[in-house]
Amino acid sequence: MSDVPATPLVKEIPPKAADLSEWYQAVCYKAELVSLAPVRGCVVLRPYGFAMWERLQSALDARFKETGHENAYFPLLIPKTLLAREEQHVAGFAPEVAWVTQGGGETLTEPLAIRPTSEVVIGTMYAQWIQSYRDLPVLINQWVNIVRWEKRTRPFLRTLEFLWQEGHTAHATEDEAAREVQQMLDIYREFSETYAAVPVYAGEKSAAERFAGATHTYSIEALMPDGRALQAGTSHELGQNFAKAYDITFATEDQSVEHAWTTSWGMSWRMLGALIMVHGDDRGLVLPPKMAPLEAVIVPIVRGEGDDVLAAARRVYDTLRAAGLRVKLDDRNLRPGNKFADWEMRGVPLRLELGAKDLAAEVVTFVRRDKEKGADGAKFAVPFADVASRIPHTLSEIQSALFAKARAFLHERTSRVEDRSEFMRLCSERAGMLDIAWCGLAACEAAIKAQTSATTRNTRPLEGGETVCTACGEPARLRAYFAQSY
Amino acid sequence: MSDVPATPLVKEIPPKAADLSEWYQAVCYKAELVSLAPVRGCVVLRPYGFAMWERLQSALDARFKETGHENAYFPLLIPKTLLAREEQHVAGFAPEVAWVTQGGGETLTEPLAIRPTSEVVIGTMYAQWIQSYRDLPVLINQWVNIVRWEKRTRPFLRTLEFLWQEGHTAHATEDEAAREVQQMLDIYREFSETYAAVPVYAGEKSAAERFAGATHTYSIEALMPDGRALQAGTSHELGQNFAKAYDITFATEDQSVEHAWTTSWGMSWRMLGALIMVHGDDRGLVLPPKMAPLEAVIVPIVRGEGDDVLAAARRVYDTLRAAGLRVKLDDRNLRPGNKFADWEMRGVPLRLELGAKDLAAEVVTFVRRDKEKGADGAKFAVPFADVASRIPHTLSEIQSALFAKARAFLHERTSRVEDRSEFMRLCSERAGMLDIAWCGLAACEAAIKAQTSATTRNTRPLEGGETVCTACGEPARLRAYFAQSY
Repeated sequence: MSDVPATPLVKEIPPKAADLSEWYQAVCYKAELVSLAPVRGCVVLRPYGFAMWERLQSALDARFKETGHENAYFPLLIPKTLLAREEQHVAGFAPEVAWVTQGGGETLTEPLAIRPTSEVVIGTMYAQWIQSYRDLPVLINQWVNIVRWEKRTRPFLRTLEFLWQEGHTAHATEDEAAREVQQMLDIYREFSETYAAVPVYAGEKSAAERFAGATHTYSIEALMPDGRALQAGTSHELGQNFAKAYDITFATEDQSVEHAWTTSWGMSWRMLGALIMVHGDDRGLVLPPKMAPLEAVIVPIVRGEGDDVLAAARRVYDTLRAAGLRVKLDDRNLRPGNKFADWEMRGVPLRLELGAKDLAAEVVTFVRRDKEKGADGAKFAVPFADVASRIPHTLSEIQSALFAKARAFLHERTSRVEDRSEFMRLCSERAGMLDIAWCGLAACEAAIKAQTSATTRNTRPLEGGETVCTACGEPARLRAYFAQSY
Repeated sequence: MSDVPATPLVKEIPPKAADLSEWYQAVCYKAELVSLAPVRGCVVLRPYGFAMWERLQSALDARFKETGHENAYFPLLIPKTLLAREEQHVAGFAPEVAWVTQGGGETLTEPLAIRPTSEVVIGTMYAQWIQSYRDLPVLINQWVNIVRWEKRTRPFLRTLEFLWQEGHTAHATEDEAAREVQQMLDIYREFSETYAAVPVYAGEKSAAERFAGATHTYSIEALMPDGRALQAGTSHELGQNFAKAYDITFATEDQSVEHAWTTSWGMSWRMLGALIMVHGDDRGLVLPPKMAPLEAVIVPIVRGEGDDVLAAARRVYDTLRAAGLRVKLDDRNLRPGNKFADWEMRGVPLRLELGAKDLAAEVVTFVRRDKEKGADGAKFAVPFADVASRIPHTLSEIQSALFAKARAFLHERTSRVEDRSEFMRLCSERAGMLDIAWCGLAACEAAIKAQTSATTRNTRPLEGGETVCTACGEPARLRAYFAQSY
């Protein structure tokens, strides 16, 4: 849990609606999620931010293990010749690579790339480990740091170095690989919706937006308050491309030799950026309880002596800790109003106030972070005896309410469009997710992007009845969400 | 849990006593803990090895959090000028640094070091975060990858890249920093002894063996079967050295400004190398139950049809899983003897055999990995109803037995020596931990090292009565363990 900050007074944050980007950066730094690092384009993930990452890690890791995956660790550094072996892949990543050229006081004979992703080094190992159909499937994940040489950077959304997990699997058949990719996509969707309370559209990326070297890329796409989409997780069918480039072959049951079918899938700390933008408000962070480092904070309201109040607050704290809740007692020598503002900024879902009046009435006052001040149900008294049992229930309500609100926003800002000029206008206006019947042609997509900056987010099958592409009039082959994106 | 390997038959491993190094490498690779990576000096930590690392991580992480520490993440890359600011530190690490000189297709104006340790970047951040005595102490840990350009490499013990945790704390007083350093040293000692079942000597390193930039370095030192010591964890008082180099100052209660007192402490995957060497035998790994990815493996002994046996084995498996045990059912279509050898190689502490005779008698046969075949208590029958309750008890016995055996070896191979020539001979012979009254002089230490390759492992106060240094005859000031080391 985060320690009590010594300089707690809330610093100014600009209103969210006026400039999302300015609000976002202010919240990230002032809520002490991150600090700018002394190396360009990198951030430090501070304890409060890291605790959110730990929530994500433990939830996803449990899901990976339940579905038969194991963790491992592959090297950070990749020799240049190895990286170059899958053509599309190296073309996609080479511009973003950081190169180690000196080590141990000498110039290296071959530069080493810092991993921008690990298909190459993992594929090389799979080629050694996999001999027979009995070795398949191989289902491995790693939690690691990644470096990509980005020009413009922004906390969580785009930084030179970031944390993620990358799953890499190998299968005997295309069909099994395809099922794996859908399973992991669905785990991302479910995690995003039930943990981060961020509703998403899951679907297949267009060829232009595909991962370098993949045959099919699927994504989950969330919608930010400014009408821009944010890709929050991807899952790739790599076909036999990497197996052919890195010689991943296996003997089948009838002794023929075939290339394996591989997949990869990843979610990064970007997901934290999504939930910050989706739920936050003018008072700061609003954290969904399942992702919150602290589920509740107890603020004793002490006037004058107040030893009784403080003692009662400590008893409540001990009870809640014993019940396994992530809770903190704020017994700093500060005015209650300052403490309220501080914990609101940090997005703690539930505040428990305990003052002399509460003590006399044997109640604790619950204050929900997700509701506006004065709103129905924002503040209510709970008898001492019911506090421990009432908290999980209230947290669950908060979790659901945040998701429902975000989903309502997503639906409200999703427009099914059939008219070309309206579509182009909405694309330009960052009006949200624009759902059209689409031809699937790269030229059409490129034209839309050139004119409006919007891109395909992802696609799904036609529902029937659509005949022409909203954007270009060619025959429709898919439904697609278009939006400007982060 | 590790999946069933498709090529399970035990491969040859050389006898442990003949050549520890050869045995060690064979076990590391053949038990599938690691593979050689396609980049010089690096290994891949495979799922079975990573599961051991996860055991270490979860145990240590819980201890760090119980003692008030929080996790965070600091950048991998450190600008050259920043690294250079603490003179002793940069002098100590510069020869081992890997340098990034190109990124995003351009040559960087300033090379970036891949962290060989993180005092520098963390110190820089602490200077920003710490203003007042109220901000102290800062107690942060990170679990990360490290790169040091080593020439000779060996799995776990020394590799170019390795995984570790590094704790970094800042305090208002020297006394508090000293207590922190002792607390973390004691956590390492306790973890090593109760989890890894590896007994250690804890004490202070000599000035020559001190961490670059520290005022005091403490270590835990284990003894390997070849009589060489292995340093398995270190804890450093950094005094005000880093605080002065990186401007970590704070306003005291009376408004004066002081430099903070900082510490750092780390344990790496080297600990895994220690426990492999200490406990393993000619059949392969022997894992202490608390560190074992699998606590038990169930091997049904099926002859002919054997459906009943398999069904009963499955029921046992389900019961044990429900009881929260880390257990695997090996239902591969292989001869039982092959399975036995396979799991013995992998060091699973307990094998549960279930054949037709066992089924008829309603018992499961327990086989302990830590005992020689045929030894007293190596194999015994447990009634079905008692299996689940008996396992934790047996695992606890195995854990204790491994520690007792290792401790007996350490004591047996620790020699209290008062004669100079005997001391020098034992040093040269790698006779184990050589415990002498020592002068503490660098010249004495250097002379011993030059003649015998032995170094001080760590030191402790004199016990009283010793007057002269065993090695050089100067006045004694400490007791010290000397040994050749990894």
